[in-house]
Amino acid sequence: MTLLYADPEVAAVLDAATTVDAMRAALLAAYDGRLVAPPRAAAPLEGGRMVLTAGHLVGEWYGFRSYDTFGHPQGEQLVVLHDARTGAIRAVAVGEELGSRRTGGLGGVAVDALARPDAATLGVIGSGRQAWTQVWAATAVRPLREVVVHSRSAARRDAFAARVRAELGVPARAVADPAAAATGRDIVVLATTSPAPVLHAADLSPGTHVNAVGFKQHDRSEFGVDLLDAADLLVTDSPAQAADYRPPMLAATPPYAGRLRDLGGILAGAIPGRTTADQVSVFCSTGLAGTEVFLLDHLVRVAATV
Amino acid sequence: MTLLYADPEVAAVLDAATTVDAMRAALLAAYDGRLVAPPRAAAPLEGGRMVLTAGHLVGEWYGFRSYDTFGHPQGEQLVVLHDARTGAIRAVAVGEELGSRRTGGLGGVAVDALARPDAATLGVIGSGRQAWTQVWAATAVRPLREVVVHSRSAARRDAFAARVRAELGVPARAVADPAAAATGRDIVVLATTSPAPVLHAADLSPGTHVNAVGFKQHDRSEFGVDLLDAADLLVTDSPAQAADYRPPMLAATPPYAGRLRDLGGILAGAIPGRTTADQVSVFCSTGLAGTEVFLLDHLVRVAATV
Repeated sequence: MTLLYADPEVAAVLDAATTVDAMRAALLAAYDGRLVAPPRAAAPLEGGRMVLTAGHLVGEWYGFRSYDTFGHPQGEQLVVLHDARTGAIRAVAVGEELGSRRTGGLGGVAVDALARPDAATLGVIGSGRQAWTQVWAATAVRPLREVVVHSRSAARRDAFAARVRAELGVPARAVADPAAAATGRDIVVLATTSPAPVLHAADLSPGTHVNAVGFKQHDRSEFGVDLLDAADLLVTDSPAQAADYRPPMLAATPPYAGRLRDLGGILAGAIPGRTTADQVSVFCSTGLAGTEVFLLDHLVRVAATV
Repeated sequence: MTLLYADPEVAAVLDAATTVDAMRAALLAAYDGRLVAPPRAAAPLEGGRMVLTAGHLVGEWYGFRSYDTFGHPQGEQLVVLHDARTGAIRAVAVGEELGSRRTGGLGGVAVDALARPDAATLGVIGSGRQAWTQVWAATAVRPLREVVVHSRSAARRDAFAARVRAELGVPARAVADPAAAATGRDIVVLATTSPAPVLHAADLSPGTHVNAVGFKQHDRSEFGVDLLDAADLLVTDSPAQAADYRPPMLAATPPYAGRLRDLGGILAGAIPGRTTADQVSVFCSTGLAGTEVFLLDHLVRVAATV
């Protein structure tokens, strides 16, 4: 019998530590070739497209995530998990929680692998769902002492800070200027919908790690290209997907492409990560395909034990 | 909240008359352009592919069916229905019933539109799920007096005949020879997995209507090409999909392609159908894309009223 999970069930089972652990395992599986994830497939419909990103953990499961480009504010995604031994559909997840926790979990792995071991302060620019799950996941890998948030809406940034205090138990405050959120922080999360830079290299202090979750392409980017020039480490969760962006991802084109490292390779110990405390590291999040299905498989296993 | 339907729920709600009515409406919607259904999209995975066929009834819903090509005997399909006004996922169906009832329903529409009004006997070659839903749907459009079934396995053809008697209340018997199932029948259903002809034109009596559900391509076909030569009417549920078969569908290539008619156009009265009682008509079933989602939308509406 197929299991159906909606957002409340996903939220109840997938805490930050569980999610980050699953995404670390997924990145390692993709790096060593056990997790197969091809480019996305799309079907054009009048007014939008249905898009499918599939994945296959050989011998274990296969499945996909679907989403559409109609742009509905209440649009919902779907994640489907097939048993690779029988073909049966073991579980289906509907909604937004699985996908955003997945992206947050990948960001948490990046913070764990790339931020300084003693990182304790986090600045976040953006106050939406993606900004939230990035901060949520970071708390699983570093004991945060303070979160400073900026977004354009005073009401939304205040609400975000209040939620951090209430749900994550971390002191938090809102600031009216994006640079004030970033300067002096050990970790900076960029998670806006802005097509123009809201952060520049000069806003960062030495030793900072940045998770960049929003636009980062040639014609639209939430950070200035000087951030890539200043970065000592450029890392992504999927070099293949980064190279496939249309228009191209800044970090996946010259002069940066040759320096872009695979987070999975760093986790595996095959590629060096941060080597000194004053390096600036930038994680360019792409959302490795197949990781939603990986996380749904994990959810099913965890849910079976509680 | 998303509704999840498995095979038993689908079977409980979608009776033959309801299904045939829904598929008639779907064919008319596709013919007049309200139902948009693009070519299939596929993502290659190691050992198989995930395939998506999408559809959009403009202003009402959009969605897709997914299936894979791993070849698992217990493999399951998925059908997803989004509300076109909000993007929310209203329902998900998992399993095989919705898809096979969909194909049966399209066959039922073809029988209704193309068989003689007084057709009362049906011969069926094949005893699997597709054969069953074709006969099941035919009973909704013609009061059948007798069903004669052939398949290679004596046990399976006997069981099929027994099931027709028990579930459809129609006298039925099994025969050891395919021609004996077809000759003298008003309606013939071909629903085998055979790549080589099991039926030839000489096996048919004048005035017969044929639903061809299995292979019908250049390199593999369950009927001899003489059947197309002998047919007075060649009809399909999707000329676009018929033209897109690889390898090509026999009826969609010269010298037959120019004679292949759209069932939706016949239903709309824009294209002539059968004009005399002695014509032989052949329906080449392709499984019009988007019709699984159309049927799931119908199921949700019917289920809400019971």
